[in-house]
Formats: sequence, C-alpha cells, structure tokens
Amino acid sequence: MKTPKRVHYFGKTKTEGSKEMKELLGGKGANLAEMTSIGLPVPPGFTIDTKSCADYNEMGGVLPEGLMDEVRENMGIVEQEIGKRFGAEDDPLLVSVRSGAAVSMPGMMDTVLNLGLTDKAVEGLARISGNRRFALDAYRRLINMFGDVVMGVHHEKFEAEFDRVKSEFGVVLDTELNESGLEKLIDAYKSVYRQGTGEDFPQEPYLQLEKSIEAVFKSWNIPRAVRYRQINEITGLLGTAVNVQTMVFGNMGEDSGTGVAFTRDPSTGLNKFYGEFLINAQGEDVVAGIRTPQPVEEMVTWRPEIYEQLLEIKNILENHYREMQDIEYTIERGTLFLLQTRTGKRTGPAAVKIAVDMVTEGRITEKEALLRVPANDLNQLLLPTFAPAAKRDILTRGLPASPGAASGMLSFTAEDAVDRAHAGESVLLVRKETSPEDVSGMHSAEGILTSTGGMTSHAAVVARGWGKCCVAGAGEIVIDEAKRVITVGGRTFGERDVVSIDGSTGEVMAGEVQKQAPKLSEEFVSLMSWADQHRTLRVRTNADTPEDAARAREYGAEGIGLCRTEHMFFEGERIVGMREMILAETEEARRAALAKLLPTQREDFKGIFTAMQGLPVTVRLLDPPLHEFLPHDDQQQAELAERLGVSPEKIKARVTQLHEANPMLGHRGCRLSITYPEILEMQVTAITEAAIECRLAQIDARPEIMIPLVGIDKELDILRQRAESTIALTARERGYQELLEIPIGTMIEVPRAALTAEKIAEHADFFSFGTNDLTQMTFGYSRDDVNNFLPDYIRQELLEKDPFQSLDTAGVGCLVEMAVAAGRRTNEDMKMGICGEHGGDPASIEFCQKAGLNYVSCSPFRIPVARLGAAQAVVK
Amino acid sequence: MKTPKRVHYFGKTKTEGSKEMKELLGGKGANLAEMTSIGLPVPPGFTIDTKSCADYNEMGGVLPEGLMDEVRENMGIVEQEIGKRFGAEDDPLLVSVRSGAAVSMPGMMDTVLNLGLTDKAVEGLARISGNRRFALDAYRRLINMFGDVVMGVHHEKFEAEFDRVKSEFGVVLDTELNESGLEKLIDAYKSVYRQGTGEDFPQEPYLQLEKSIEAVFKSWNIPRAVRYRQINEITGLLGTAVNVQTMVFGNMGEDSGTGVAFTRDPSTGLNKFYGEFLINAQGEDVVAGIRTPQPVEEMVTWRPEIYEQLLEIKNILENHYREMQDIEYTIERGTLFLLQTRTGKRTGPAAVKIAVDMVTEGRITEKEALLRVPANDLNQLLLPTFAPAAKRDILTRGLPASPGAASGMLSFTAEDAVDRAHAGESVLLVRKETSPEDVSGMHSAEGILTSTGGMTSHAAVVARGWGKCCVAGAGEIVIDEAKRVITVGGRTFGERDVVSIDGSTGEVMAGEVQKQAPKLSEEFVSLMSWADQHRTLRVRTNADTPEDAARAREYGAEGIGLCRTEHMFFEGERIVGMREMILAETEEARRAALAKLLPTQREDFKGIFTAMQGLPVTVRLLDPPLHEFLPHDDQQQAELAERLGVSPEKIKARVTQLHEANPMLGHRGCRLSITYPEILEMQVTAITEAAIECRLAQIDARPEIMIPLVGIDKELDILRQRAESTIALTARERGYQELLEIPIGTMIEVPRAALTAEKIAEHADFFSFGTNDLTQMTFGYSRDDVNNFLPDYIRQELLEKDPFQSLDTAGVGCLVEMAVAAGRRTNEDMKMGICGEHGGDPASIEFCQKAGLNYVSCSPFRIPVARLGAAQAVVK
Repeated sequence: MKTPKRVHYFGKTKTEGSKEMKELLGGKGANLAEMTSIGLPVPPGFTIDTKSCADYNEMGGVLPEGLMDEVRENMGIVEQEIGKRFGAEDDPLLVSVRSGAAVSMPGMMDTVLNLGLTDKAVEGLARISGNRRFALDAYRRLINMFGDVVMGVHHEKFEAEFDRVKSEFGVVLDTELNESGLEKLIDAYKSVYRQGTGEDFPQEPYLQLEKSIEAVFKSWNIPRAVRYRQINEITGLLGTAVNVQTMVFGNMGEDSGTGVAFTRDPSTGLNKFYGEFLINAQGEDVVAGIRTPQPVEEMVTWRPEIYEQLLEIKNILENHYREMQDIEYTIERGTLFLLQTRTGKRTGPAAVKIAVDMVTEGRITEKEALLRVPANDLNQLLLPTFAPAAKRDILTRGLPASPGAASGMLSFTAEDAVDRAHAGESVLLVRKETSPEDVSGMHSAEGILTSTGGMTSHAAVVARGWGKCCVAGAGEIVIDEAKRVITVGGRTFGERDVVSIDGSTGEVMAGEVQKQAPKLSEEFVSLMSWADQHRTLRVRTNADTPEDAARAREYGAEGIGLCRTEHMFFEGERIVGMREMILAETEEARRAALAKLLPTQREDFKGIFTAMQGLPVTVRLLDPPLHEFLPHDDQQQAELAERLGVSPEKIKARVTQLHEANPMLGHRGCRLSITYPEILEMQVTAITEAAIECRLAQIDARPEIMIPLVGIDKELDILRQRAESTIALTARERGYQELLEIPIGTMIEVPRAALTAEKIAEHADFFSFGTNDLTQMTFGYSRDDVNNFLPDYIRQELLEKDPFQSLDTAGVGCLVEMAVAAGRRTNEDMKMGICGEHGGDPASIEFCQKAGLNYVSCSPFRIPVARLGAAQAVVK
Repeated sequence: MKTPKRVHYFGKTKTEGSKEMKELLGGKGANLAEMTSIGLPVPPGFTIDTKSCADYNEMGGVLPEGLMDEVRENMGIVEQEIGKRFGAEDDPLLVSVRSGAAVSMPGMMDTVLNLGLTDKAVEGLARISGNRRFALDAYRRLINMFGDVVMGVHHEKFEAEFDRVKSEFGVVLDTELNESGLEKLIDAYKSVYRQGTGEDFPQEPYLQLEKSIEAVFKSWNIPRAVRYRQINEITGLLGTAVNVQTMVFGNMGEDSGTGVAFTRDPSTGLNKFYGEFLINAQGEDVVAGIRTPQPVEEMVTWRPEIYEQLLEIKNILENHYREMQDIEYTIERGTLFLLQTRTGKRTGPAAVKIAVDMVTEGRITEKEALLRVPANDLNQLLLPTFAPAAKRDILTRGLPASPGAASGMLSFTAEDAVDRAHAGESVLLVRKETSPEDVSGMHSAEGILTSTGGMTSHAAVVARGWGKCCVAGAGEIVIDEAKRVITVGGRTFGERDVVSIDGSTGEVMAGEVQKQAPKLSEEFVSLMSWADQHRTLRVRTNADTPEDAARAREYGAEGIGLCRTEHMFFEGERIVGMREMILAETEEARRAALAKLLPTQREDFKGIFTAMQGLPVTVRLLDPPLHEFLPHDDQQQAELAERLGVSPEKIKARVTQLHEANPMLGHRGCRLSITYPEILEMQVTAITEAAIECRLAQIDARPEIMIPLVGIDKELDILRQRAESTIALTARERGYQELLEIPIGTMIEVPRAALTAEKIAEHADFFSFGTNDLTQMTFGYSRDDVNNFLPDYIRQELLEKDPFQSLDTAGVGCLVEMAVAAGRRTNEDMKMGICGEHGGDPASIEFCQKAGLNYVSCSPFRIPVARLGAAQAVVK
C-alpha cells in the first residue's frame, strides 16, 4: 500500500497546493502555495496536511509513519532552492513552524521560529549575517519558544532569567542587552530548559523540527483552542496543518522590519491600504502588542520602494482573491517577503461596505456579496453609538481598534469579567495587553480596553472578529492589576467605577455616556435591498410598543409576529388593575376589574396597529402565570392591601395559593383562558375595538389573534369559538358593519402541540412556533435555571451550542418539521412562522427556510440580520 | 327517501331487538327484547333507539321527523296485545318511560311511570282495579314525576305539599293518606305544576309521552350524567335509548310487590340467588332506599311459587347470557313480571370468583374469563382489610354493601367530601341516603356510610361498581346534617372524628382500626395463572426496599423495573451524609462525604438484589435536584449547621444558590452526574460491590444501571463510559474475576430523548420509558401544579382522562412509538419497558402491548392488575 502524500511543497521549484485546498492545507498553507503560484515573494517551504494532525491525535499522539521521511525529502528541495542546509554549522537554513487550520484562529495556535539553530549553527549565522548580536538573539528566542511552546516549560521562568540578566547588565530594554549579555542569557535559558524538561536543549535540527510539528498537532486540542472553536461555532475540521517555512528576519537591523496589513480598512471597509509595521522586529512583536507599531503609510519615509511594492501586491491579491486580504510581511535587509495572506477579519460595517464596493467594482456578484457578510455581524451596524451631544468626560485617547460604544465597571482579569458578567454586571475588561487566555473574559465583557498594542494586536483582532467594542494601546492609562485600579491623568478608577469607551474614536471617558441609535449607510441599504430580492421568508418583528414597532418597521419588518400583551399590564397604574383582577374572588369582580383595564389595553393596540398599518400584527393573549403580577415582599403586599382596601393576609394568601412549584409548566397561557374566559374576552374586545377605531380613522389595522401554549386541539377549538363570538359581539355593539376578518391562530410551543398538529390545524388560521418554550420542554431545560449546568454541557461538548440561541435541529427541529408537515396535511396553505429568539439567528433561519416556514419574527434590532440570513438561506 | 326505523317492538306479537343490539337499543332495551324472545314474562312495549337521541341532541332538541308516528303505531300493537287503550277513560293502558344506554348507569337517568293517567283515566283505573286509593296514588306519582323529571319543577315543592296534606290529615306515613287526602294532594300537585310550568298538567296521553321521551333524550347531557361517564371513563356512545313499556304494579296490594336480584352474590361472587323485595311497593321504592327491603329468600314464606319461578328464571338467564345477571321484577296481583335484566355489577373479588366458577361450570372459556374481570378491579382483592386481632369499638352494624375497610373523618355533604379529599384529608361520606348528585363526593371519600337503603340502594350499587367500601342502611345512626354530627348509641361524632367501616361485615366503629394485607383466593390464583399463560409483556415492579421487592415478587413481579435510589438518602443518619456531600465545596470534600454514604447504599442494594435474586433489578441513579435534600426552614438549617460545624449562613446560602425557578426542568437526573461525576461513581461502586458480595454468597444478583433524564446521546455516551470504568475498577479492586455483566440503559423521559432515540440507542442496552416526566414535558404540565387547571380540563371535556393516570396515546404515546421504532432501528433486540405510573393502568398497558414494549413496571399492588391487563391486551 502506498502511503498517502502528507507534505505539500511551495516554492520556485514546484508548488503543490492552491487556495482551494484549505481543508487539507489549512488557510495559511493553502495561501502560501497560492501566493507562490501567482509570483509573490514568499520564502519557500512546505505544508504538512490537516489529515496528518487528525491521524496523530486519533492514534493517541504518534506521528504518522513515513511523515518525517517526507519532511526530510521536502526540506531537501528547500535547501537546494535557497542554497543552504537546514541547521548547517556554517550558513544554516532556519525555518519556522506555524500552525494553520482551514479557518483562521488568530493567536490561538503556537508558533516556533528559528528552528535549526544550535550551539554551532548560531556562530555560523553570526558569521554569515555579520551580526552576532542578531544571531544570539535568534538563538535565545528559539530556546525560549521551543521550551515554552513545544516542551511546556513555563514562559515566566525564561522571563525571570531575562530580567535577572538585564539587571546584571544594568539595562532596561531587551534590545539593550549586548552580545555577552545574550551569551549569559542563552546559558541561563538552557538551564531553565534543562530544569523544566530534564534534558538538554536539542542540538539536532531534525529533532527540533519533529518535536515542533508534534507540538502543533497537540495544540489543536488544548482547552483554549477548543474554547475558541466553541465561541466561534467552528466545527467539522480535521485539525491544523503545519507550515514549515524558510525563516526571513525582520530584526536583522535598521534595514529590516516586519508588519501586517489589510488590503482595505477592516474597521470601516474603506478601500485603502491599511496596516502597521515595526522596524528591526520580528512579526510576533507586532501581533503581541509589546511595541506600538507605526502606520504603514509612514513606510514612505523609510523605504518608499517597498511601500510601492506593497501597494502593488495589494492589487494583485485583491484581483486574485476577489476579497479583502490580511497579510503578514517581513523586510529582510531591504527585501520584502510575504509570509501570509488570508481573508481579513472585519467589523460588520466594514463587511457590508467591502461587499457592496466589490460589487460596484465588478469583482463579485450580488449573490456573492450577500454571502460575504456574516448575517450576525449586521448587529454591529445597529448597535448604538454615543450621542454626539452627550457630555464626554474624556480621560485619554487610545486606538479605535473595534467600533462601538461600551460602558461598564472596570474588571481586571478575564475570570473576574466572566463571573461578574454572569452575575449580570456590565463590565469593561481592562488589560495591559490581552492574550489567548483572556478570550472568555473578552467575550463576557461589554468592551475591551488595553494600554499597549496596536490595531492588529490580539485584543483588536479578536474584538473586531466579534464586533465587540475595543480601544487598544491607550498608553496613558496605568493599570495596577494587584490593587485593581487604573490611574489616568491623575484620576483613579476602581472595580466599581464605570468607564466608557468609544471604539470608533478611541476615546476613554469617565462614567456612563449617553448612547444613541445608529445611522444606516448607503451600502447597508443596497445590501438589504439585494437580500429582499432573494429571500422568500418574510421577516416580522417581536414588538409590543408603538415605538418598537416603528423602529422595526424602519429596519424592514413586514409585520409583527409576536406582540406580547403582558408587558402592557406592568406599567404604572395598570398593575393595580391587574392585581385587582387577580385578587377578585368572583367572576363578576374579575370582570369589573378587567373592564377598567380594557380602555388602556385598547389604546395600546391602537398605537401598535397604527405604527404597523397595512401590515399584520399578531397579538398573543396573556401568557404568564398570574402570580407574576403580584408583589412577593411584605411591604409591597401591605401597600397593595391598603390600595385595594383588603387585608394584607388576604393578599399573602392569594400569593401563596397561586404559587407554583414549576410555574413554567403551570397555570399559564391558554390555560388561563380556559379557567378565566373573561380575560380572553377582555383582550379580544380590546383588539376588536382598536381595529374598528383604526379603520374608522382610515388606518388599515390588520390584527391577528394568537392563542398561546395550546397542547390539545380542543383548547384551541373552544377558545377560538369564544374569541369569534367576542369579535362578533363587539362589532355588533359598536355598530360596525364592514367585514372584520381577524385570523386566529396558535403558538406551537408545547411538544404535544407539535405531535398533534394535524388536529390542532383544524382550528388554526396560522401556526407560530414558539421555539423558546418548545426548547425548554423538548430538552426539559428551564431557561431560568439552565446556567447551573449548560456551561458544563458546552465545555464538555455535550452540546455544540446553546439551544436557546440557535435552534436544536435534531430535537426541537424535528418537532417543528413534524408539525409543519402535519399542519399542511390539514390546511395546505396555512401560514407558519417562528417567533422564538431563534427567529433572529442565521443558522436557525436557514433551518426555517428548509422546514418550509413562511416567516420568522425577531426583535427589532435583529431584523436586518434576519433579512440577510433569509437571503443567504436561499442563495446558499 | 324512506325514514329510518327508530322504534323496535318487543312482545308476544313480535320482537324486533336482541341482546346484540345494545349500541342501538341500549342495554335495557336490548335485554327486554332478548328476555321476551326467550319466553320470559316481560310486559310488552317498545324501544326508541339511541340514534334518535343523538339526532335529537344534534338538531338542538327537536324530535326526529316521523318518530311520534312510529311511536303511535307501536303503541297500537301494545294496545292490541294487552286489550286496553293508552290512557283510555274506562280501562287505561299505562306505560313507563325509562332511559337505557348501551352501558349501564345506575340512577343517573330519569324514569317516568304511570303515563297515560288523566283526570278521567284515573277514575277508570280506580274502577277496573277496584282500588281507588291505588289509582289516585298512581296519579299523584305521575304528576310529581312528570313535573319534576320532565318539566323541571323542583321535587321539594311537591314534597312540601305532601307534608302539608299529611299533617292536615294527621298522618305520618305516605301510605296512611286516604283517598280524600290523595284527592287533595292531586289538586295541590296540579297547582305546584301550574306554578312551576305556567300551564296545566297535560290531559292528553300522547303529549305526556312525547314530553317524557324528550326529557329522557335531554337527560343524556345533564352535568351529572356527563360526570358519571367521565368518572367511569365511558366514551363513544350515541346517547340513550327510551323504553316505553306497559306498566305493571307492585303496589296493587298485599298480593303485589317488587324487587331486584342478582343471579350470584355481587359482593363475594358466591353462586347463590341474591336479592331483595318489598311487598306492595313500586320498583323505585327499592332502589331509592326509602324503605328497607327483605332478603329475597324470605319470599318463600310469602309466595313460595314465585320464589321457585325466580330461581328457574335465574337458571334460564345464566344459561342464556353466560354471565351473572342483575334483574328487576314486579309481582302484580300474584303474577311475576321481569322488567329488566342486565350484566350485574360486582366487586373485584366477586368478578374473579364468578369468572373462574363459570369456567369450571363450563359456561365460558379461560380467555373469556380473562376479559370478564376489569383489570383495575383486582386492586380490591389487594386492598387491606381490618386486622382480625385489631380492637374494634363497634358502634352499630349496617348492611355490608361493598367490601373493604375504610377509615376517615366524617363528611356530611358531597361538596365537603370533594374539597377535603382534595386537600389531602381522608374522609368518610355519611348520608341518610345517596343520590346521583352525590357521586363526586362518593368518589372522593374513602368509604360511604348510609343510614337507610339496602344492598341495592344507590349508595351500594355505585360503591360496588367502584370497589369502594360501603356500609348501607345503618339505621341506628342519627345524622344531623345541619350540625354536622352523627349520634349512635348515645355517642356523638363530628367532622373531625374518625370512624371506620367494614364493608364485608357492615360494622361501624369508632376511631381508626388497624388494617392488614389481604389473603388471595384460589380463584385469584387460577385467573392469574391463565393471565400469565396468555400475556407476552413481562411485568416488573417499582420498588426500592427489600420489603416492597418481596411483596411485589409475591404478587408475581418478574423483576424490578425501577429502583429509585433517592429514597435511600432520606432515612435517619443518611440525610446528614447526603447534606454534607451537597454542602461540600470541593470535589475532594464531596468524595469524602460520598465515601461515608457508600456502605449504606451498598447494603440497600444487597437487600434488594437478595429479595429479587434471579430476576433483573434496574437501579436508577440519583434523579432529584440536590436542593430537595436540604432543609428549607431556619430551625432545621440551624440544626444542620451545628451538626456539620458550619455557619447557618453558609447553609442558607447554599440552599439559595441551589434554588431553582423550575426544579422539574433543572439541574437533576443525569445532569447531576455530568457536573458531579463522583455521585455516579459512588452509586455504581455500591451497585457493583453489592452484586459481587451477593454472588460470592451464591445469590444470583442481576443489577442493571439506568441513567435518568438523558436528552442528548452524548450524555449517555459519557456516563456509560464512566459507569463501565467504575464497574471494571471496582471488580479489580475487589479481585473479582468472574464475568460481571451489568447492562446500562436509560430512561426515555425527555421529549428530545424520544426524538433522538436512534442515536441514544447506540449507547443503551435498554430503554425504560419514564412516562411520568415524559407526560409532564410533552404537555407542559407540572404534576405538582396541575390541580390548578386539570379538574377544569376534565370537567370541560378538554381531556378525556388525567394523562398522569392513563397514558395520552395521541401525544405522549406518539413519542413512545417513535422512540421504539428509532431504538429498534439501531438495536433490533433492545429491551424496552415503561416505568411510569402508567405501567399499572390497563388502558396504558394495552398501548404498551401495541407499541411493542417488552415489559411494564408498576407499584407492587398493581402487579396483578398489570398481569391481567397484559393478558387482556393479547386476548382482545
């Protein structure tokens, strides 16, 4: 049996990969091959494929047979091309080893540089480079990286030695350490290595290489990598590829440098070359945010010809990839090398602008543009910004690393941010710089503020990927992590102080700053119009005030899919009327209390129908258990008692009587209307009267009545009849003669409703899937309690995603599909939609499209997401 | 179009019905026809079919066209046969109108007698009978019954007039009123009638008849009839038939009489003619319990030839019907007439004895015998009786109307009995006599005690039908309903006093009397052995103590289908260990606390495995949320704090932390084992150690491990692996070398588990449907809260039955069927069972049979019910 090819070469001699081979070669490897093919200056090397990583991990950590032979063979080609030998004592070929999966995961994977250096080769490098300090520095970096990343010796142990040697030599900066200092440091590092691993630092180049390759394979399954994939919902990958590539050095002196760049502005999408560079530095120095780099435009003053070359490369790349690229480059003694290109991460607004601009530029089609914008990212366009007129107490200004507006109390560690966010606090994560260990905390925080690092630092890249607000490199801020305070301009802020950051300006402000709704760009409008042309799903909104309805309409809502009525009973005086109704002991008293609520309820509906005129408004009848409306503490009960002129004991008794062990599964939804028909009658009367009054005022009100929590066909049968009689009676009483068609439908949110949908459909004009409750009951998860175990479930990969955020297609989805099929058997043309929070989740929308629903309904801010998601579901 | 035939004649001229036509003619009508056919002395008449009732009610209360013409036609045949004319002034033919549905509903339907009497006809009857008093009495009965039953004039208004007239004439008993008294009474009744209806009592016989027929049709839908059908789970009937039959009179003098009888003893099943009669009385007098009748044997001293004739009829009927019969008869001036025969209601023990005896007598087959005993009735054979040695403080003795032993606080009205039973009290319903209005209260009470009425009074018949303990006709008891006390032998008992009744002896005793388990009859053993031969479903038990296991085994359990482990942690000291575990803050501390619980848990299992040796024992791992084990009140928390040496605040904090909004849908079941694997490990270790220790002692322990609340296949995957490693580790540590196969399976009790059963089956050796939780989640009903609305649902016929008592086949059953099919796709031979309370419900067992399950599991006392139910599911 022939062993499969595992190593793929790229270089002048031959190039075996291409950008289509991402699955196998990872993004980085595929693009190194692609760039080589199209003639860009890429240092030669080879890629070990992702299959090998999968095999390695499957076999429990054994390198696939023959792999190292293939590696040596390919290294031979590199050696021939470059004219150096790997780790040779005279003029060593050095290589880097980098991971690269099919999907980019910035900072999550480990890199080892300068492989091939040994005690002897370092002197060869010193000779040939004419820069012994550089060679020694490269060697100490290797020992440190290899010890830390490959062998698991703690980085801080190396750092401690560095500090010790620097102080011994009386210097402060790393770069100030001279050759003999570096010699000492290398010895010290070797001791650290020996202590940490029990063996000497390997002097055999291929042993260094083999161990590094293994380390990359292993890093695929370290917790932070797993966690990153979870947060970003990355699944289905084999593993990571390993890229072995000739080293080029940006730190060979003042004629060398390194940088990163985007072919367009990743923050705004402007078509302008955008990046940073550091002179005399290695790539890691830029990304890690240790030194703050210069904007790439400033390269004109340093090496104009290289800047020109970069602009040319920008064009070549965009023409070739038809996508905005994120590149890494190094200038070694005046020669430019490209080390990486990949699709650039960008903010939501940038994604929209780039996609639409590329259509205008003729690079891509409208359909492609629709797929270029992750639907969820549209959220960012709708996030509030700070109001221009708001007072800003500006403390300092950092880099506008990821747009948005965030306010929160200061949090100084990732763990703290996670805990406090979980406890419901809004926090701002403040770090000198962030690292992959911080991702959970960054995810939990409202925003991220760092005091060092640039636009392409870890914090900035990760935050932009999520659309989370970030201000980076705010160097005037002094962070005292131990004392948990920051000091800036002589002012001190602690854990309970609120600070605001503006990710679009870089401003850092004291206190909470007033926010405002965002303005929508032209490009956004174009993209949405394309989405509307392609999608077949209607998009409605969940709204229960005229204001929300109007906002949703502005965002493109085509009706209200869920107008909850319970919120209407909590406002001001209304709650008193509601409580009076609940405390009533006879139907008569209940009716009297309800009669008082009727006018306000009617006015609410009029407002909503008016805001939505010409579009359907699905009103859900009262859903929550009655005890939610009663006060539970003594004082409030006493106040209510006085107000209603009854004894506090009576109120306490009623509260106790209404208490339920599992209110979620209790006396709520349509069950209330079965026992208290007068509640339904009041609500239906209010809806009908509102509709009549609107129509008389020439407002095209289109109410629909939705009966919640139906589980038995007869429930809907009876309640529908009751609602129909109430509508007819109300119209008669109002002397309204015109046709008043008010469709009556039901939520499908109880598993039994889905299972018996064929019979329920006999009494329903429409089905609306309440996937929140359906998820609760299908899984047996109380949404209020699920945090006791769901995080464990996600961590242990029992569940890929939180089923309350993204619809569980295997279980809940199965019920939805059954109900759609059953409902359509009874009534072929029945209108069906979804009104759980899944209605605004693109993956769930795709499911809805496949399941054959007619519409999704989501919160106003998710409307554009849903419109785009619906279009993508079709275009895909 | 020919109108359908609606009226069916029975008599000497022709007989158009037969006993097979119950659906159409009702039980009474079909049997009147059948008895006529086989030559028994039945007064001629005709039956209007149930279809006409359905049509009447469907058309909103209009008699079907042509019906009355058909009635007149048939009446003509009766007239010819009898030689009298209906309502004629000289010698009137009088008829009765009685309802009769396909299923017997004693006392629930209305009857009108003596139809055809008018002001003139009554004098004709007086002349021809030579007994004017009798004729007048018949007339006043007609006016009363017709007014009350047909026209809705309140019975008490007639009663009041009767009392007035009696006192005017200075008499006490009805029978003491002379002719002129009766004349006055008739006038008074006519006034009552006129006031109540606004019209005169009709003097046109056919008008009387027509209105009476309508009244019977209407009575099908009165609430008490609907309620009776619900309690008795009677569905699918068209309506009631109407029987119009020539009147015969048991009250024509001392040579007349009336009675009821059973062909065997309905209480014990003994093959002995069993009944009662009253001289000079109408049938209603016996059933209503107003006069206490004589045992039928005493007829020998009154009319020996009629007694002989009755015994002969007993044989004819049993030979013909091959079933125990319940007959009504009347003797008019020395001539015997049969007015009804029907299958006799009987107690559970009687049902078993009669069925088995009839097999012995060669009347029926074993299979028929299996179908003759309602499986649920076997419960009665297993009900405790009073211990013979128990002290009995006997107050008085009544009739042993329905066997059993009951104790409870006295309740004086049906409403009170319902309310207090609902509140959890055990009550004894005490009434002078019961009426159909009392059925709800009778159903709720532990037992029924009446001070008048015989063995065939309303109370006795209804109680026997349900297998509920009843002592009737305890005449020494004086009931003061207003004061809510009874007085007997100078002693007084009130609402809070406990009284016991023995339904087999008729004894009424003060206080609670000690009960004992029942002895099983030979016939029971025979019937069970036939059931075991026919059934294919295995029957296991739900038991979690060696005592319960042993009892269940005695009743025929073939293993334990559900051994709950949580109960094991509540006993005595164990709860302290459990609480210590829950309060532990580290895994280490939790393991330490669990280690203390391990030995007791192991001993529990050893006891159960020993009791069940040779049979499988399915142990369910810990299921309830942890907070159920913690004390919730301050004092208990303080005690626990002292006990464990921690602060009460800490305990309070942990209780608060563990509190859940919906514990039913919270952190419980296998979710506990995901977050606290050490709990699973302890339990599996205990099971394994117990199994090993049993086997070493030559006890064939057959444990199975059941993982509860699985909703995701990976849950089972992970937990199964953990359990398997624990079993292997324990066996190694114990040095046990033999094969130790412990099947590992799961509950299917979360809808998602049923929906994804195909994948879950990959990791399961068996499925056990936990239909209690599955019902909760499929309906979205919290069992703890469902009483807030479920009674309304049953009352309003939204649900036919309580889905927690009898499995909902449309919804929950659909999930079960899907899961069975899906599970078998993965593992064709997978063992599947049910362990919810439905496992002991015959209708649910029939479903389980159809669904292809392998076993049902139920509480020990339901085992015989399940065995018989399983056999019936096959034989049917």
